[in-house]
Amino acid sequence: MSQSRGYIVPIGGAEEKLKDRVVLRHFAEICGRRTGEIAVIATASRLPETGRDYVRLFRDLKVRKVKLLDIHRRSDCDDEDYLRMIDRADGVFMTGGDQLRLSTIIGGTPIGEALIRRNREGLHVAGTSAGAAFISTHMIAFGDDGPTPRFNMVTLCPGLGLTDQVIVDQHFRQRNRLGRLLAAISYNPAMIGLGIDEDTAAFIDPEDTLTVYGSGGITVVDPAEVDYSSMDQASQRKPISLTGLRLHVLISGGTFNLVTRRATPGVALPTGG
Amino acid sequence: MSQSRGYIVPIGGAEEKLKDRVVLRHFAEICGRRTGEIAVIATASRLPETGRDYVRLFRDLKVRKVKLLDIHRRSDCDDEDYLRMIDRADGVFMTGGDQLRLSTIIGGTPIGEALIRRNREGLHVAGTSAGAAFISTHMIAFGDDGPTPRFNMVTLCPGLGLTDQVIVDQHFRQRNRLGRLLAAISYNPAMIGLGIDEDTAAFIDPEDTLTVYGSGGITVVDPAEVDYSSMDQASQRKPISLTGLRLHVLISGGTFNLVTRRATPGVALPTGG
Repeated sequence: MSQSRGYIVPIGGAEEKLKDRVVLRHFAEICGRRTGEIAVIATASRLPETGRDYVRLFRDLKVRKVKLLDIHRRSDCDDEDYLRMIDRADGVFMTGGDQLRLSTIIGGTPIGEALIRRNREGLHVAGTSAGAAFISTHMIAFGDDGPTPRFNMVTLCPGLGLTDQVIVDQHFRQRNRLGRLLAAISYNPAMIGLGIDEDTAAFIDPEDTLTVYGSGGITVVDPAEVDYSSMDQASQRKPISLTGLRLHVLISGGTFNLVTRRATPGVALPTGG
Repeated sequence: MSQSRGYIVPIGGAEEKLKDRVVLRHFAEICGRRTGEIAVIATASRLPETGRDYVRLFRDLKVRKVKLLDIHRRSDCDDEDYLRMIDRADGVFMTGGDQLRLSTIIGGTPIGEALIRRNREGLHVAGTSAGAAFISTHMIAFGDDGPTPRFNMVTLCPGLGLTDQVIVDQHFRQRNRLGRLLAAISYNPAMIGLGIDEDTAAFIDPEDTLTVYGSGGITVVDPAEVDYSSMDQASQRKPISLTGLRLHVLISGGTFNLVTRRATPGVALPTGG
């Protein structure tokens, strides 16, 4: 098979929408922009304007065709027209809101299966805030803020499952979420933690190298050499001990290879603002 | 590639060990028994005798070679001898104890990766109780007992990841765990719930059909047609609503195909006792 996987693009929320629109513009670029077609999924949001706003944003960025998939119930997820749109689209964009709306409404449905299959065939999938959390196999459903990892401070559940290599947290430094990302990793130090700041995105390419775009940073927590986690001995609200973590803080242009675990500062990219 | 995946065998705990030993005997059979080699992983247990007891049990069942992998820390998980044993073994058996010991000690290590790779190549992997919980991608770490699914009654985290098709719970009817299995599924109705009773096992074959062995039953919760989950709107300790679940209760000889979702009562098998 010559086809390769599409990009997987978790965004930290609150991406800049009025000026340079660096993150949204780059997603539009990889989708082909003037030749491309993007489907917007606003299921995470309860606000009727969320989906329409992103449709307008991508149209302003000169994407050829932009469609809203109006999915609010599980029964919307076998709509033939929506499935055809996903079959045809170059990119899918999932908005913010509540990631549990995405997992409870889309999980295990024909739309959910189509997103997984089409991403393997080349469809680019981006999500911001709740949409970013939902992308990976293991999703942070909710949790407490703060710098210290504690027992039971984070609730994990199955996400969409485009990649099992990472666990994503968003609004990362704005909401002081290092503790809950470390707690998520302490259960099973097999996944790489990605703490993504607002107006910042990880563009994970088909070869599993991510490149940072946007005005903030991405905190990469690599547990490959963790030699101890106390999660199995912790109790209610007590702090967790983890030793041997490797941490990278990357900004625009920085890269990290999820397979080799190598980070580079990379080359400066436009950050907007 | 002509090789097919090995069996995946979650066992509900407390399997009978003195008389017919139906579950352990059948695992020994598929591993080749008089020609076979089984490696025992007792990492979940803090009791030194647990691993030695299973080594003796499989030797009594005339398995040609049985070895204990003495893994108690993450640094044990790159031992070359242990990795060679997993490369050579026909089967691996993981004992009971605490599944968080398995995930915090083995997750993301060379031993963890070898188990995943070798199962894809044909290694049979069984686990009882904690060992059963650890087998799948999404693992029940702990939770509350009771028949009603409630918000936050169950804690999920990443397991070993041999299959992402099921979430396993064990000691199922003995500890009244239907509520927490339904709660686990309510986050994202994409995985099939397997509630496995004591002295009972699901032998999941390379074509993803499971067959029940042992004296108890397996409760299969299939969410393929779920049209509603209230998990995204629930709050602390409140009950969860789920509509459209399909439920099968299977006993010895019963089968369930994880792909077609078809259940059959099957043919009676010896249950021992």
